[in-house]
Amino acid sequence: MLIMGIDPGIAITGYGLIKVKNGVMTLVEFGCIRTSPDKTLEVRLMKVYSRLSQVMEKEMPSCTVIEEIFFNKNTRSAMAVGQARGVSLLASAHLNIPVHEYTPLQVKQALVGYGRAGKDQVQEMVRLLLNLEDIPRPDDASDALALAICHAHSHRLDSLIKGKGWGR
Amino acid sequence: MLIMGIDPGIAITGYGLIKVKNGVMTLVEFGCIRTSPDKTLEVRLMKVYSRLSQVMEKEMPSCTVIEEIFFNKNTRSAMAVGQARGVSLLASAHLNIPVHEYTPLQVKQALVGYGRAGKDQVQEMVRLLLNLEDIPRPDDASDALALAICHAHSHRLDSLIKGKGWGR
Repeated sequence: MLIMGIDPGIAITGYGLIKVKNGVMTLVEFGCIRTSPDKTLEVRLMKVYSRLSQVMEKEMPSCTVIEEIFFNKNTRSAMAVGQARGVSLLASAHLNIPVHEYTPLQVKQALVGYGRAGKDQVQEMVRLLLNLEDIPRPDDASDALALAICHAHSHRLDSLIKGKGWGR
Repeated sequence: MLIMGIDPGIAITGYGLIKVKNGVMTLVEFGCIRTSPDKTLEVRLMKVYSRLSQVMEKEMPSCTVIEEIFFNKNTRSAMAVGQARGVSLLASAHLNIPVHEYTPLQVKQALVGYGRAGKDQVQEMVRLLLNLEDIPRPDDASDALALAICHAHSHRLDSLIKGKGWGR
C-alpha cells in the first residue's frame, strides 16, 4: 500500500509518500512545493495543484492523507490554508484517489502515543519509524509523512480488527 | 467586456455574468452550483470546479471577480469558504482568465455609495442597475452579480481617469 501525506499551504506545501508492506513502512519520497509571493494567488494555487498532480500521477498512491480542519488559527490563515487545501483535495479527486483526514491530535497519538506531544517528538518518531538518518526537512514534508504514518497505523488497527493483518 | 462574478461556497457557489458595452450593463447569465452534503468534500469541490470551468469555457469572460478575504467569520467557515475559493481561482487560472478581488466594503460603496449598506439594499441595486424585474435568486447569485458590477464601476473609473471611456 502506497500512502501520500499532504500538508497544504500557499507558500509551501509538503508531501511525503510511504510504502507499507508486510507490516514494514518505508520511505518512498518526500518534498515540498514552494510558491513565490511575487506571483498572483491563482498562479500560486495552480503551481500547488499541478505539482501535486504530477507526483500523484507518477506514484499513483492508494490514498492521500490530509490534516483535518483545525480551529486554533486566525481566520486569515484558515482562509489561506483552505485555498491550498481545496486544490490539494481537487488534485486527489481528479485522479480518483480516496482522501483520509486526521486531526493533529490523532497524528500525535498515532506517532507518539500522547496527544499533547511536541512537534519535535513527532518529527523524531517520523525519523525512527521510517529508519532515516535525519529528520526530513522542511517541517512541511515531515508533517506530511507523519500524516501518512498516522493513516498506516489506523489502517493496521482496522485490518487487525478485521483479522486481515497489516498492509495487505 | 464580459465580467463574471463568483461567490464561492462548498454547499452553494453563486455566479453571474454581465456585459458592459458603451456604458450600459446588461445581464448575461446567472446561476448557482449546489453540492450535496452526502458527498465527500473532494467530490463537492470537484463539482464546483468543473461547473465553474464549464461556464467560463462557454462564455470566456474577460475576467472573474471574487470577494477578497474577510475576517469577521469563524475559522471553520473561513477554511470551508477558502477551499471553494481555491478551486474557483484555479478554474480561472487554468483558463488564463485574470482575477480581480474586492472587499465587501468596496462592493457596497460601488453599488449603494455607502459602505454600511444592508444586503437588501445591495440586492435592490443589482436589480435596478441590470434593469431586472426581480432580484436574482439565490442570494449567492445576486452577490456574484454585485461583484461583477463593482468591477465594472471600478474599471469605468480607471478608464475615465485614463480618458478611455467606459467599457472599451
